[in-house]
Amino acid sequence: MTEFHVRAVGRVESPLTDPATAPKQGDEGAPESTIVFEPEVAEALADLRPGTDVIVLTWLDRADRDVLAVHPRGDGSRPLTGVFSTRSPHRPNPIGLHRVTIAAVDGLRVRVRDLEALDGTPVLDVKPVLGDPADR
Amino acid sequence: MTEFHVRAVGRVESPLTDPATAPKQGDEGAPESTIVFEPEVAEALADLRPGTDVIVLTWLDRADRDVLAVHPRGDGSRPLTGVFSTRSPHRPNPIGLHRVTIAAVDGLRVRVRDLEALDGTPVLDVKPVLGDPADR
Repeated sequence: MTEFHVRAVGRVESPLTDPATAPKQGDEGAPESTIVFEPEVAEALADLRPGTDVIVLTWLDRADRDVLAVHPRGDGSRPLTGVFSTRSPHRPNPIGLHRVTIAAVDGLRVRVRDLEALDGTPVLDVKPVLGDPADR
Repeated sequence: MTEFHVRAVGRVESPLTDPATAPKQGDEGAPESTIVFEPEVAEALADLRPGTDVIVLTWLDRADRDVLAVHPRGDGSRPLTGVFSTRSPHRPNPIGLHRVTIAAVDGLRVRVRDLEALDGTPVLDVKPVLGDPADR
């Protein structure tokens, strides 16, 4: 399979350190956390504003990339399901997709709500939530 | 910046070949297209079903990764904006995020609606749309 390189444009600082007890999705009780961006991408984040929702893409660096099917949510009573039909972190390309709310911006440090990523998780990208086509 | 490797788990087959005339988002007139997956990930896509909406992540292989700010939608009358506040394909990690509807599944070939990716675009991942927490 063809490979490409992604690079960390920042990292998550979070009180979450244990995958076993972290919430499975950001709206299931994630604490506030901070994305600390690399100085090289300062210009890319210059227009992020508190109070807006954005989509954060992360690199789930503790995932197992050889897993192709899982029991959803680790519940062994549920049938094995192809990972493209689950949000399991274990998948060929472990890219996390998170909708978060920006709480504060302080230079390269962006405080966010509802991010369930573990402390130290690399961040790959931030994108605006798409609204109505007429407003784009 | 730390680097990671992603690999193409499939490719887009689409009538879209020219970035200049392709729709900017999938709900702005994208034609039907087909994702052709690699045989190695067959198990991961085994539970994809026609009629459902999924999120497809692509690798926008014709993007310029050195761009940090753009005029939104290529409109020079709009102010330069940090790419993390835009959906520009030009950004440090050119990962495309697309919400599509599955029209048909035939082995490794998955036909989808509303995918604006160009012909040949590598596919990195497919994820279910998150519904109500109680239904996960």
